[in-house]
Amino acid sequence: MTSVTVLGLGPMGRALAAAFIAAGHPTTVWNRSPGKETGLDAAVAGTAAEAVAASPLVVVCVRDYAAVRAVLDAGALRGRTLLNVTGGSPAQARELASWAADHGIGYLDGVLVATTDAICGPDATLFASGPAHTWAEHRGTLAALGGTTSHLGEDPGRAAAFDASLQDMLWTSMSGVVHMFTLAKAENIDATDLAGHAKTLLGFFPDMIDFLAGQVASGRYPGDAGTLEATAATMDHVLAAIRAKHLDNGVLSAARAEVQRALDAGYGADGFGRLAALPPAHRRGRK
Amino acid sequence: MTSVTVLGLGPMGRALAAAFIAAGHPTTVWNRSPGKETGLDAAVAGTAAEAVAASPLVVVCVRDYAAVRAVLDAGALRGRTLLNVTGGSPAQARELASWAADHGIGYLDGVLVATTDAICGPDATLFASGPAHTWAEHRGTLAALGGTTSHLGEDPGRAAAFDASLQDMLWTSMSGVVHMFTLAKAENIDATDLAGHAKTLLGFFPDMIDFLAGQVASGRYPGDAGTLEATAATMDHVLAAIRAKHLDNGVLSAARAEVQRALDAGYGADGFGRLAALPPAHRRGRK
Repeated sequence: MTSVTVLGLGPMGRALAAAFIAAGHPTTVWNRSPGKETGLDAAVAGTAAEAVAASPLVVVCVRDYAAVRAVLDAGALRGRTLLNVTGGSPAQARELASWAADHGIGYLDGVLVATTDAICGPDATLFASGPAHTWAEHRGTLAALGGTTSHLGEDPGRAAAFDASLQDMLWTSMSGVVHMFTLAKAENIDATDLAGHAKTLLGFFPDMIDFLAGQVASGRYPGDAGTLEATAATMDHVLAAIRAKHLDNGVLSAARAEVQRALDAGYGADGFGRLAALPPAHRRGRK
Repeated sequence: MTSVTVLGLGPMGRALAAAFIAAGHPTTVWNRSPGKETGLDAAVAGTAAEAVAASPLVVVCVRDYAAVRAVLDAGALRGRTLLNVTGGSPAQARELASWAADHGIGYLDGVLVATTDAICGPDATLFASGPAHTWAEHRGTLAALGGTTSHLGEDPGRAAAFDASLQDMLWTSMSGVVHMFTLAKAENIDATDLAGHAKTLLGFFPDMIDFLAGQVASGRYPGDAGTLEATAATMDHVLAAIRAKHLDNGVLSAARAEVQRALDAGYGADGFGRLAALPPAHRRGRK
């Protein structure tokens, strides 16, 4: 079994190490601030360089890219493969991949898509990107991390880009779900009474995702199944109900403004997918 | 079979009339601007009053509440039941119910939840609210309108409130889906490549809805399954990826600002459901 080193022992790093250990890989761990007991059946290295020296595959999972750079020693890593699962943007992943290439280090970028309590379980998915030969070399070992492992392509930023896109949908939708409950509460509707109806509505989402994907992929946005003009009217009804309760938190208002941009550009008879093809709005940057 | 009158022959009104006819109800229709041919096996009334006189149950489905008021004649409606399925806010429904009560008119408010091409089909749901005895009297006839009919309560605004809450989730989520594709496109990811992963992620949503409903219903928001602080960090990663491509349309930014309000109020260790219990933000009104 291939030896594996895990740098960083936050909740995610610990879960990664535990998954490698469970799959039978001799595992070495290191954390910047040494704890008393790792509780893991792993060798605990005294320094990051010592940890890196122990394995051909080094997984780094720390707070952010600044911490990644602080932890990694190019000399110690030369000739080894680094899998970085620290959260960041596609551009950060590409930049680190380029640094790794400059130092003779194999690089894969990875994202674990999982609910918090199922990191590395059979329900978890590992997205990875980077050179196909590097993936081919380590995919057997990395199978320990999720029920599904998926190499998305050679662009090292691709895993992060997939993840950012999916998280964009996830957190926008989560905001919609919680605001649904906020409005319902103001209307004396119990969240549990509404949940079943919400799940019924959710049943349409897979078809809706395929439908919008088809519009975006084809670059054609017919309004047969509903026009942006009709959407605007519906959103206005909803916003009126929200504002009557002083509950506008700006999320649906921003979505409505995006629809307005499409109407103003003459796309009122098009379908909702048209929004994916609007030129970017000019917004002032904010945090 | 009970006779039914439908006022308003837009796409929705026509679908309603067709559904009553298909179920065997003698149906009278009327439209403010008379068309040449309705294409429906219905009696076409010359005036709204004549149409109303033809049936004990009158369904009105017009553009908006102003059109409803313009169309309805209190004298003609006295002693009959009005089902209003015109889109509007809970407050508008309550106001119209109160007007109906003042004039001795039975009132039900209804919302048809359906995809556009399935109004009144077996996949459609009719939400109704108003007096239980009025619902009991007409529910058999109204079963023609959807595979599921649901009386939500006596508050006449309740159907509209359910609908507004669900539409809030729907359109916020739709915005998230289309923006997922927008970001993916900018990262050279095909929408159709991403769609399958998006649907996998969607598989977690029913549990997530129940989970958030449970938090909101109990008024307890433990962060065990993920804290608002962690959510903020994730959203910041996603926003960095979005802004790197100049694609911030304000929707996820507004969701992030809402999370920040919770952090600023000291709820960083709570779960996402806490957002449903924040005091309303003070926002300036906008269209």
